[in-house]
Amino acid sequence: MSKQLVFGHLNPDTDAIVAAKAFAYLQTKLGVEDVEAVALGNPNPETNYVLNHFDEPTPRVVTAVANEVDSVMLVDHNERQQSVSDIDQVTVTAVVDHHRIANFETAQPLFYRAEPVGCTSTILTKLFNENKVEIPAKLAGLMLSAIISDTLLLKSPTTTDVDREAVRELAEIADIDVESYGLEMLKAGTDLSSKTELELVDGDAKSFEMGGKTIRIGQVNTVDLDDVFSREAALVKTMEEENQKNNYDMFLLLATNILSSDSRLLVVGEPKDTVEKAFNVKLSDHNTADLPGVVSRKKQVVPPLMDAFA
Amino acid sequence: MSKQLVFGHLNPDTDAIVAAKAFAYLQTKLGVEDVEAVALGNPNPETNYVLNHFDEPTPRVVTAVANEVDSVMLVDHNERQQSVSDIDQVTVTAVVDHHRIANFETAQPLFYRAEPVGCTSTILTKLFNENKVEIPAKLAGLMLSAIISDTLLLKSPTTTDVDREAVRELAEIADIDVESYGLEMLKAGTDLSSKTELELVDGDAKSFEMGGKTIRIGQVNTVDLDDVFSREAALVKTMEEENQKNNYDMFLLLATNILSSDSRLLVVGEPKDTVEKAFNVKLSDHNTADLPGVVSRKKQVVPPLMDAFA
Repeated sequence: MSKQLVFGHLNPDTDAIVAAKAFAYLQTKLGVEDVEAVALGNPNPETNYVLNHFDEPTPRVVTAVANEVDSVMLVDHNERQQSVSDIDQVTVTAVVDHHRIANFETAQPLFYRAEPVGCTSTILTKLFNENKVEIPAKLAGLMLSAIISDTLLLKSPTTTDVDREAVRELAEIADIDVESYGLEMLKAGTDLSSKTELELVDGDAKSFEMGGKTIRIGQVNTVDLDDVFSREAALVKTMEEENQKNNYDMFLLLATNILSSDSRLLVVGEPKDTVEKAFNVKLSDHNTADLPGVVSRKKQVVPPLMDAFA
Repeated sequence: MSKQLVFGHLNPDTDAIVAAKAFAYLQTKLGVEDVEAVALGNPNPETNYVLNHFDEPTPRVVTAVANEVDSVMLVDHNERQQSVSDIDQVTVTAVVDHHRIANFETAQPLFYRAEPVGCTSTILTKLFNENKVEIPAKLAGLMLSAIISDTLLLKSPTTTDVDREAVRELAEIADIDVESYGLEMLKAGTDLSSKTELELVDGDAKSFEMGGKTIRIGQVNTVDLDDVFSREAALVKTMEEENQKNNYDMFLLLATNILSSDSRLLVVGEPKDTVEKAFNVKLSDHNTADLPGVVSRKKQVVPPLMDAFA
């Protein structure tokens, strides 16, 4: 078998970076020789904090893959528009993911492992155990960080008992106090002052096809919503520009207070009435709406939008 | 959780029927209370032989599901056109399969387990082991039959070491001599004299979208190709009628000699030159071609056709 690349989604978050490293490591332990974990973008501040903390190198960033390999493995995503630009020119041999399946098609049977849990690294913890491969302490720390990131310290409604069990197991291997480390790590990802407006709205954004429309949904975590909304006018301008440049019909920015587990939504584009219907809210004059208790794009934002667009 | 139905593909083969029973049984052992294994069609002669042999009841046949449940679990298939007619009206909560992924989309994360092995029942054997659930002797016999059926007694190129290991384990639990039972079982599925032309061409057929065309591919197993091709004119007429009635662009019938592990292809519809390109053969005046060593629709017929149509 010739070389394969392993990678998570565009705009990588901590799970996208870490799960690629973990799955690549597992593959080598299972006898697959030439695999390299790469990333489809630079690590965000939270992920940089995690990589620094565990003295782990930053993965190589690629923007295309067909020029160097024939086949790839995907983690933490499957939808074409969230993957590398030339994904249709290579064979996907394996997927490990915790999202819905859509815009994904293969010509050949493959290994596909998805579970409705909070984090890809949780499924990988199970895969290590099923295959009786030991998780090194450093990798356990990285995978633990990914679960803390995706579940906001196990507070997101995406969190399952399987995630809690994985956190317990990984924390023991890595010898880490989950609460204190987790809060430091999440805070490291919320220093917004140095970020441009484009980084704020698009840094973690994903595209979704809904009812024939292209909807871009970004999320930014903060410990104070004012850090985001004091810059509202500039954010709106950037989102308008992004819509125009990329033919998005609508751009939604979900600003999430990770301390109170609430969010405020900022909407640019149309159809806004579908957004109001989805969340049963009235948008303000500034096209914002408070969404109390909402912290998960995947579980609390995408499904009601999908329903409203259906 | 309200009741869920578990089922395999249309035109069920032994794996489609058995894997539904096995996955439903596993779910109940894992605490999911109300699940029922059903089928999207009547069992074929081979499957009837298997169910009789193990004194196992025939599953209830359904043609729609949304009238009785909100969510379902799929085994041995994922493509919409191979599933129940109203699949888009229910939520798929789980899939266990060994085919390519295509024409499949969900709004929510789900449990999805696919591996590139010869049979769904092989993956289910792993799932029982991973979850430490014992396989009863009768169920082991059924699952063993499914693997023998899908891999033609481990001779198909779809066969992997994982299938061989599952057969060894299941045969021990069920206390069955694989060779002698397997040959009896496969022969029971090849009595073609009582079958109508429609049963021969469409009994095991599946539809595929390739390059914008709808391609119907049937397969019939035999111990003597003359049993099939002595009825060629009537078969062609039936395939023409089916193409017209269902808007198929092309109908391919793969007649497979399970003793010699060779096949002969019969082609009705267009574009025939794409079929010739796919298999690097010249079709005879009767639009047939011998395919030595070809026994697997999934591994040796669909992929080269996909490539030729791409």
